[in-house]
Amino acid sequence: MAAEKIILKDNANIKFNNNVDFCVGTGRTGLALCKEYLDELSLVQEEIGFKHIRGHGLFSDDVAIYREYEENGKTKFEYNFTYLDRIYDSYLERNIRPFIELGFMPKQLASGTQTIFYWKGNTTPPKDYKRWQSMLKAYFEHIIDRYGFDEVKTWPIEVWNEPNLPGFWKDADMNEYFKLFTKSFEAIKKISPEFKVGGPAICGVRDEEWIKAFCEYLHKNKIVPDFFTRHHYTVEFPERVGHYDYHVVSDPEDGFKNLKSTRDIIDSYKEFKGLPIHITEFSTSYTPFGVIHDTNFNAAYLARLLSRMGDVNESYSYWTFGDVFEEQGVPYTPFHGGFGLVAGGCIPKPTFYTFAFFKKLKVKAEKCILRQDDAVVVKTKDGYAGVLWNTSKKKITKEFDFKKGEYSLLTQTVDEETCNPLKLWHDLGEHANPTKAEVKMLRDAAKPLTSSERVTDKITVDVKKNGVVYFELVRSTITPDRGYDYNRVLALR
Amino acid sequence: MAAEKIILKDNANIKFNNNVDFCVGTGRTGLALCKEYLDELSLVQEEIGFKHIRGHGLFSDDVAIYREYEENGKTKFEYNFTYLDRIYDSYLERNIRPFIELGFMPKQLASGTQTIFYWKGNTTPPKDYKRWQSMLKAYFEHIIDRYGFDEVKTWPIEVWNEPNLPGFWKDADMNEYFKLFTKSFEAIKKISPEFKVGGPAICGVRDEEWIKAFCEYLHKNKIVPDFFTRHHYTVEFPERVGHYDYHVVSDPEDGFKNLKSTRDIIDSYKEFKGLPIHITEFSTSYTPFGVIHDTNFNAAYLARLLSRMGDVNESYSYWTFGDVFEEQGVPYTPFHGGFGLVAGGCIPKPTFYTFAFFKKLKVKAEKCILRQDDAVVVKTKDGYAGVLWNTSKKKITKEFDFKKGEYSLLTQTVDEETCNPLKLWHDLGEHANPTKAEVKMLRDAAKPLTSSERVTDKITVDVKKNGVVYFELVRSTITPDRGYDYNRVLALR
Amino acid sequence: MAAEKIILKDNANIKFNNNVDFCVGTGRTGLALCKEYLDELSLVQEEIGFKHIRGHGLFSDDVAIYREYEENGKTKFEYNFTYLDRIYDSYLERNIRPFIELGFMPKQLASGTQTIFYWKGNTTPPKDYKRWQSMLKAYFEHIIDRYGFDEVKTWPIEVWNEPNLPGFWKDADMNEYFKLFTKSFEAIKKISPEFKVGGPAICGVRDEEWIKAFCEYLHKNKIVPDFFTRHHYTVEFPERVGHYDYHVVSDPEDGFKNLKSTRDIIDSYKEFKGLPIHITEFSTSYTPFGVIHDTNFNAAYLARLLSRMGDVNESYSYWTFGDVFEEQGVPYTPFHGGFGLVAGGCIPKPTFYTFAFFKKLKVKAEKCILRQDDAVVVKTKDGYAGVLWNTSKKKITKEFDFKKGEYSLLTQTVDEETCNPLKLWHDLGEHANPTKAEVKMLRDAAKPLTSSERVTDKITVDVKKNGVVYFELVRSTITPDRGYDYNRVLALR
Amino acid sequence: MAAEKIILKDNANIKFNNNVDFCVGTGRTGLALCKEYLDELSLVQEEIGFKHIRGHGLFSDDVAIYREYEENGKTKFEYNFTYLDRIYDSYLERNIRPFIELGFMPKQLASGTQTIFYWKGNTTPPKDYKRWQSMLKAYFEHIIDRYGFDEVKTWPIEVWNEPNLPGFWKDADMNEYFKLFTKSFEAIKKISPEFKVGGPAICGVRDEEWIKAFCEYLHKNKIVPDFFTRHHYTVEFPERVGHYDYHVVSDPEDGFKNLKSTRDIIDSYKEFKGLPIHITEFSTSYTPFGVIHDTNFNAAYLARLLSRMGDVNESYSYWTFGDVFEEQGVPYTPFHGGFGLVAGGCIPKPTFYTFAFFKKLKVKAEKCILRQDDAVVVKTKDGYAGVLWNTSKKKITKEFDFKKGEYSLLTQTVDEETCNPLKLWHDLGEHANPTKAEVKMLRDAAKPLTSSERVTDKITVDVKKNGVVYFELVRSTITPDRGYDYNRVLALR
Repeated sequence: MAAEKIILKDNANIKFNNNVDFCVGTGRTGLALCKEYLDELSLVQEEIGFKHIRGHGLFSDDVAIYREYEENGKTKFEYNFTYLDRIYDSYLERNIRPFIELGFMPKQLASGTQTIFYWKGNTTPPKDYKRWQSMLKAYFEHIIDRYGFDEVKTWPIEVWNEPNLPGFWKDADMNEYFKLFTKSFEAIKKISPEFKVGGPAICGVRDEEWIKAFCEYLHKNKIVPDFFTRHHYTVEFPERVGHYDYHVVSDPEDGFKNLKSTRDIIDSYKEFKGLPIHITEFSTSYTPFGVIHDTNFNAAYLARLLSRMGDVNESYSYWTFGDVFEEQGVPYTPFHGGFGLVAGGCIPKPTFYTFAFFKKLKVKAEKCILRQDDAVVVKTKDGYAGVLWNTSKKKITKEFDFKKGEYSLLTQTVDEETCNPLKLWHDLGEHANPTKAEVKMLRDAAKPLTSSERVTDKITVDVKKNGVVYFELVRSTITPDRGYDYNRVLALR
Repeated sequence: MAAEKIILKDNANIKFNNNVDFCVGTGRTGLALCKEYLDELSLVQEEIGFKHIRGHGLFSDDVAIYREYEENGKTKFEYNFTYLDRIYDSYLERNIRPFIELGFMPKQLASGTQTIFYWKGNTTPPKDYKRWQSMLKAYFEHIIDRYGFDEVKTWPIEVWNEPNLPGFWKDADMNEYFKLFTKSFEAIKKISPEFKVGGPAICGVRDEEWIKAFCEYLHKNKIVPDFFTRHHYTVEFPERVGHYDYHVVSDPEDGFKNLKSTRDIIDSYKEFKGLPIHITEFSTSYTPFGVIHDTNFNAAYLARLLSRMGDVNESYSYWTFGDVFEEQGVPYTPFHGGFGLVAGGCIPKPTFYTFAFFKKLKVKAEKCILRQDDAVVVKTKDGYAGVLWNTSKKKITKEFDFKKGEYSLLTQTVDEETCNPLKLWHDLGEHANPTKAEVKMLRDAAKPLTSSERVTDKITVDVKKNGVVYFELVRSTITPDRGYDYNRVLALR
Repeated sequence: MAAEKIILKDNANIKFNNNVDFCVGTGRTGLALCKEYLDELSLVQEEIGFKHIRGHGLFSDDVAIYREYEENGKTKFEYNFTYLDRIYDSYLERNIRPFIELGFMPKQLASGTQTIFYWKGNTTPPKDYKRWQSMLKAYFEHIIDRYGFDEVKTWPIEVWNEPNLPGFWKDADMNEYFKLFTKSFEAIKKISPEFKVGGPAICGVRDEEWIKAFCEYLHKNKIVPDFFTRHHYTVEFPERVGHYDYHVVSDPEDGFKNLKSTRDIIDSYKEFKGLPIHITEFSTSYTPFGVIHDTNFNAAYLARLLSRMGDVNESYSYWTFGDVFEEQGVPYTPFHGGFGLVAGGCIPKPTFYTFAFFKKLKVKAEKCILRQDDAVVVKTKDGYAGVLWNTSKKKITKEFDFKKGEYSLLTQTVDEETCNPLKLWHDLGEHANPTKAEVKMLRDAAKPLTSSERVTDKITVDVKKNGVVYFELVRSTITPDRGYDYNRVLALR
Repeated sequence: MAAEKIILKDNANIKFNNNVDFCVGTGRTGLALCKEYLDELSLVQEEIGFKHIRGHGLFSDDVAIYREYEENGKTKFEYNFTYLDRIYDSYLERNIRPFIELGFMPKQLASGTQTIFYWKGNTTPPKDYKRWQSMLKAYFEHIIDRYGFDEVKTWPIEVWNEPNLPGFWKDADMNEYFKLFTKSFEAIKKISPEFKVGGPAICGVRDEEWIKAFCEYLHKNKIVPDFFTRHHYTVEFPERVGHYDYHVVSDPEDGFKNLKSTRDIIDSYKEFKGLPIHITEFSTSYTPFGVIHDTNFNAAYLARLLSRMGDVNESYSYWTFGDVFEEQGVPYTPFHGGFGLVAGGCIPKPTFYTFAFFKKLKVKAEKCILRQDDAVVVKTKDGYAGVLWNTSKKKITKEFDFKKGEYSLLTQTVDEETCNPLKLWHDLGEHANPTKAEVKMLRDAAKPLTSSERVTDKITVDVKKNGVVYFELVRSTITPDRGYDYNRVLALR
């Protein structure tokens, strides 16, 4: 197939809100006590580097913040921040800070017994909104005391998670959620108006209805939130077989339209127009055994999302950074379709590199000069950088022409042949409990293939089926050390 | 080109003394105080794992063991083991122990002023053999005291280095060397006859003459050493341009013949017949700016040496593990043709993996079942493992037929396209002082490409120009977790 | 007060089974996934070094081993070893291995809903003993597969925990326990008779009755266990105030008598006579908010136990190594009276050093030459070593006379003035959530005071109130370096 | 003896230029390649934290920057920054940056053969000042390229070392030094006038004469340096015995007067008045076998210097941070009187804590409220902090009265009984090569004794002979957790 010819124009300037590293999701907050969790997070932070981390279960009983007790016949309450401090300390040590999600309900503060997940997060409203507000006050005062107000005020605050699903919020009761939002908003703004608070954190179920009703409610009550939030998954309903979910992806354009519709509703209110929308969760599959997550296809498909999610949103947070996750129980194997960028044993999945590549783009970019359905190219200080991807089944080839000069071309290729830990794990026998040697092998193999070349005015880049390719063109001249002749070295034998 | 067809016979049993990990060379002993040296050594030990390490300069003044001083008008002497302990402690912490080389001469104990190298190792006989013996006694007593006799007695001891070169031993004076050998041998055996002492540590210059004379001398003097030693380099005389040496390699078969001639001379003496010969240095080029060292060709060429060096020798020690080395001054760039398996910044060179692959063969082998000029295959507990290499300019292909079964095939490929840090460094601009980001990139890129497959009774392995390929066939059945269907996963989109 | 004069006799030889390092307790197995837990364990292993670790909850649902599911209308079961492997790998990396405790009951395998603790361990018999046996079989086969039979067979196996308490075993039903024991014993011995299995793991409640009944049962059923087990706590019933338990200790001699009574019952059966008794838990207080645990008094009191517990028992396992522990919920402050040798933030408590000192005694001892109620002294290869302690409120002083010579005396003192992190924490304000700087300060301060002296034939050792002192006398001569004169150095000013 | 009574006045405000952490000295630059050097530096930076590091030998041949070679019959020159980058990278990783000292002379650029030290630094003027300037240009351009101008411009630059001694500068030739200074100054200011350049780096020999002549020279030539530098040692001429130097200290007041005289000379020139004076080396003894360095007396004596050195000087750099040092050869034992704050094996000496304590004072101080010959006290945000020292042979006692309140008092005591690694090493037998266990013991023992108390309005602080005591009073109330009663805990038994 002939290469697509593309001329890179230095004076182009294309809007591209690449906020790949703003936030990432995590399994429930309490899991941050685990060593494997922290090892995976360290890896993600070293190679990608996110600013914020968002997860459920901050107020769930395994974090153990809220406690009621009887004294002299009266019910009193007290707070315990032992685990919270350990968790947040670990985050800050890894240069990541909370995108706070207020939820779920401490058992003793709950109005009901409904729980969600293997780990039993209580998803009922508070039995007493004053106590809820007291708890928020105690929580914020504690973290301000420990980390300083200047630090804490940079942590966005989202009220609850997916209240539009009855599993996450009893009866998906809209009015009750609006009450929770308002009570939380008020309690926090009272501590400081500088805190940024938003919602409604809904997923795609009846999303238009919810967004409209939420805006209307805020409008009527003269509340202006600091930002809006919603989620975004891009798969059809799965087939479940045994432990696993088989999902087919939907057309990304449908998703972009859906996101645009949220933007439009919000912007239709004068006082909300242009307020940030944070996509506080997104991925392909929305289940923790969604086998598609581990594939090279997922990596390529995600690249397209990353190239577009910033169009109408401030940020978008991949759900999740790692595979220490227990919503549907403990995983049976390292490649079980977990949400993570990293599999158990600190093995990067292909999608890990999609994020790493977009992060490099962001760090290096002066401006975007090309954006296509399967490519983004930016101008850098001393050349160009780009990411290409291919969700089709055939190789694609692009030829880029650019300003003449001496360049070094660096490419990193993640495709089924060069960086495919899932296949290696399969070929080794799909061991549920790989040996240490196997885990090391998997980790070593889960690296992009790096290539390089000296070029002057054009390059051709191939992207194989389900591949993602990063390239960098850096102006450079070779200044050999005295007597060194690379071509002569190569000719020796 | 048609594949060469090879049938792997489970009942074959081919002699193959694979002693790839017995010993490795190092820059002068005093350099072991350096952090970069130790970082490189740690990497080599983690991924390859040698038993012994051998280098020059144990008694040179930078290690500072021997010191004379005046007291009351008399010359006295004393010993300082501060640095020695630091060095040997570092070795043992990294699970490697000395192959002791006795040399060079402390300035104050020397009979002359001749030195060798940028770092000025004195290469003259002792001014007083009694003091030499006293120093040996003090040295051995000290290390026995610190590390225990059971440990130290496993460290082989070689007398001096390349006395057949006038630069290394004044006038290449044979008789003087025999005297040094005898005096050293006696002093050490007096401490314990269990110590293993050998020589004459010669290189390929006038080697036959030296070996014969050495044997004759020992024979006449009724000395039976514990082993013999010599060196082995396989290049023609280089052209030097600027800082660099351009060498062409010689035919390996010529080298093997040369090694055999040493074996034959030794075996012609009844009392020496079959005594171990340790090749205490070998490589292609014998200079620290021998640019060939950094190439993929070197890796492939070395594979052939590793497949044969054990035929007439007990062991063979690659010169050297790393590029912290100063014989001709401080290197100007990371890829300067240093001796090391690892370049500055802990970047593995292609040859690093030749060693890693042969080490895996050794660990896994039950017996050797195939040995060719470009391949070795062993039978393992649960399958097969092999290394293939290609020093030609065209791809070679081999088809292996083996006992039918369910196997996972793992291959690791090191060739100019998959693992070529030299090229990447060149393409980036041959920077003398790469940035930290560049060093990380080089390190990340210097990995074999790992592939895998499920196979049943035959495999085809390609080895490209200058490539080295490791493969492993492991009998295994796939036992998918409940509901997991890999093919269905792959088909999702 | 005059010093007590003691003559150390080199030819004395006193029975002293110092098995201080055989085993240590831990919070529930699942907590071993936590980073803080593993950091504390690393510290304990570096400075003390235990062989085995024993904790509850192996089969509890947070470790997630056992799982039932429906398929085609039938209930099936499957196993998940993801977390188990992570935990046991972590143990072995820290050179400690399980003392296996079989329990508690997976919810789906349980016959009832009774649970114990904040973390809700199910303490009812299996609903189906065949499935229990199947689970044991699967568990043992898995760990043998992963760690090797030679390794696993060294791990002692104890059936359940404290079945004599109705909280730990429904109705404290003896016959049901005997059934559980027998079924477990049979299932394990069927895998290999080399496994060592024991029980009944009772605490001090109705202990005589239980031991007798257990022996009788075994005797009648011709079962010979590999060892017996029981627990040993040495406090009176506490007063609970708020979160905390205030216990007064009992006379240690009463405890020793109680232990002896168990020994006597067992030895009264011919077939059990002399079988090992492992005290699989012991401490002063038996609650995780037993404030006495953090005190210097506890350290001194424990020393006496350590000097005697081996008299009739094979081993004795301190409950627990660290303060990551959740039986009564998450601790509120670092010094909450947790069971651990180490407080949260890796702060050693005084009792930590009692163990460290007895471990040194063990490592250095050739034989015991003195044992008193407040001292033990051993003969070492090149001198003497001893531990002294003082549970009284007044300083005690002992003078030791020994074989004349040149010795260096080293003492390490842990008392209220030299190593008292509890006091420092109190004086800093009893902060529930100390800052990192405070934690570092606490950790730095929680060290013994080390002193030294040159002595020849006698030493005087003071032990202040609640103190524990370790001393070491090592024969050594001073061989100053040329020109070094220590006394002259000291006189300089 | 009665305590001295001192009333701390909150409204006092005493001048105290505490610049304890501005700079520290180091053995020759090339030693920074050593692992032990970097381990010691890491420790110093973690516990004290200096901003700059200054050492000799930047241009000496072991760093290998300058190299001449012949090509086509002509002499050419080239630069090698391989080692320099490794060294400076290591510094910046440890958050310390060079205080550049320009010197000594590369052998090939030298006009003579005179060398100094065991490591043979060439101390002759350049054979060609243009080449010297070229080298400076190349050096600065390289480090600007690697570290950025904004970073490098913060590194002060000093021309040469102690040119007033003939060993350090041929014939102590003043005019030649002034030439070197001028040529260097010009070359550097040409790169950027923002660089800060100073001299003359003299020691106390003929210092007045040199300072005057230097000022006069600058004045006449209309050169205004950015700062002046000199050294300051406070001992009498030593007696050398064997390897060791026995020095008696001089009266500190004499030293302060001497420093003032330099200040006065400089300030007598209008254009130099008030320019910073950096004491680029100071200590008690000026030899690397000055046994006084290791003593507790040294720690106490140094405290007095630290309390006063800032009076007329901008900064003062202790010579040196560690004991990896070779000016008079390799040390024979860990406690050989080396210059370092840390002995070999990363053992802090008492003086280490004098610096740590003054650094804490600096970090916490709002202002100084007391300065005596044996004490400094500062007001902190929430209380007071102070350092006391005692160079006499008798205990001193001070009682401080302060503003009534609830305080926690923390004291850290370094004296002969609490933190005296030299004594421990002596008592163990003065082993030249301590075992790993001994080194660990020495390291563990080399810690201050930490004590604490609750106080309200007065404290009494004892300082024993040769002691240094740090104290901190922090306002704090105790807020016991529910049910916790510290006094009741202590009373338990």
